[in-house]
Amino acid sequence: MRIDILSLFPGIPAAALSESIMKRAQEKGLVEIHSHNLRTWATDKHHVTDDAPYGGSPGMVLKCEPIFAAVEQLKAERRESSGGATGAAPKVVLMTPAGQPLTHALATSYARESHLIILCGHYEGVDQRVIDHLVDAEVSIGDYVLTNGAIAAAVVVDAVVRLIPGVLGDADSAAADSFSHGLLEHPHYTRPVEFRGWRVPDILLSGNHAAIAAWRHEQALAKTRRVRPDLLGSGGTEA
Amino acid sequence: MRIDILSLFPGIPAAALSESIMKRAQEKGLVEIHSHNLRTWATDKHHVTDDAPYGGSPGMVLKCEPIFAAVEQLKAERRESSGGATGAAPKVVLMTPAGQPLTHALATSYARESHLIILCGHYEGVDQRVIDHLVDAEVSIGDYVLTNGAIAAAVVVDAVVRLIPGVLGDADSAAADSFSHGLLEHPHYTRPVEFRGWRVPDILLSGNHAAIAAWRHEQALAKTRRVRPDLLGSGGTEA
Repeated sequence: MRIDILSLFPGIPAAALSESIMKRAQEKGLVEIHSHNLRTWATDKHHVTDDAPYGGSPGMVLKCEPIFAAVEQLKAERRESSGGATGAAPKVVLMTPAGQPLTHALATSYARESHLIILCGHYEGVDQRVIDHLVDAEVSIGDYVLTNGAIAAAVVVDAVVRLIPGVLGDADSAAADSFSHGLLEHPHYTRPVEFRGWRVPDILLSGNHAAIAAWRHEQALAKTRRVRPDLLGSGGTEA
Repeated sequence: MRIDILSLFPGIPAAALSESIMKRAQEKGLVEIHSHNLRTWATDKHHVTDDAPYGGSPGMVLKCEPIFAAVEQLKAERRESSGGATGAAPKVVLMTPAGQPLTHALATSYARESHLIILCGHYEGVDQRVIDHLVDAEVSIGDYVLTNGAIAAAVVVDAVVRLIPGVLGDADSAAADSFSHGLLEHPHYTRPVEFRGWRVPDILLSGNHAAIAAWRHEQALAKTRRVRPDLLGSGGTEA
């Protein structure tokens, strides 16, 4: 998979995606991540990428021209490097709080794409013509606003890349995650068995794997009921 | 406000929070952000912060000792630096997909705290005794899983700090955001007025501010209905 990120702060996703599991995924050749500065595609002398909004309002809006130029160049390069093969088309994703929410299911579907181009908003937003004529999906990482879509891009890429087969060391790790079964994760304990008088639950020391699995499921269900009852009740949560 | 972030990858939030608006907020003295390496508080020779889970399962779990030591030291330092004043207690927040969802409302309430200590998960999770006896709130940035809680910490800090009075250049900018009125944002346009045959809507060029405001509200409502009907219907969305 190839991922291109377009933002005004390319160092942010680059730093976030250069450690630990993301670093190893790239070293293993499972994903190729490029973080670009949108200013590269601004053709005027001062590399201006934003301008004041029509109709008046505070803040600035990202302009059409550099974004269309960047995305079209990245698409063309990819076509050439694949010898003109008509493989899966690149998917162009805009990070915006007005998008559809990123979920485990959406991350799973993106993990099957061959080329993602991720556009990051900044300032007030992006010219609507980019959304209407260039973008395939508007995605939000949650119901809050960030100063900088480059941070949101790092979130999406991390959530997607970890689901590419081979990225996580142990295939079971992703399967046991929160959300993959519709429940939050069960509690974890590690050594010491007693810390400041607080002991690890006896069941986890019992060696009875069936009983441990049942306890964990019960705990996960109880936690989900308490913290996120909204995740229950849509069926399939007992899987 | 002071924010301490504890993770195994302190460079990630440090990079994400050192640009643009977050940089200026720190330069203006509106917030002091410190990103620490949890390994500093691991007392053994190899600075081990994780161990295998009791009860068996893949992955590793972050241990109690370094986390308790780190948080307690940060709390004590803060007490000393404030001359022992009994101001607002620090709030200890754990980033975990099993937490309550970060929302605009939660970010707004955190923006009023005087000291946030943010713990980042990694690997499978954190020893439950940290959650039971040290953490004030478990917070999730969304219904997906990341390899690295340090990215989630950067998200929370950015979402919170931009709401501290004085951080955004124009006070109106935050008030017009997605979510602050229960609706997604209206479309934005900037120059040129025509790009590849696609024109800016005439109304935005009309100079009629009341009509523009009405059009924007209508567009915001229509987009919210289409993309996020779940945000409507709970009252107050027409504010």
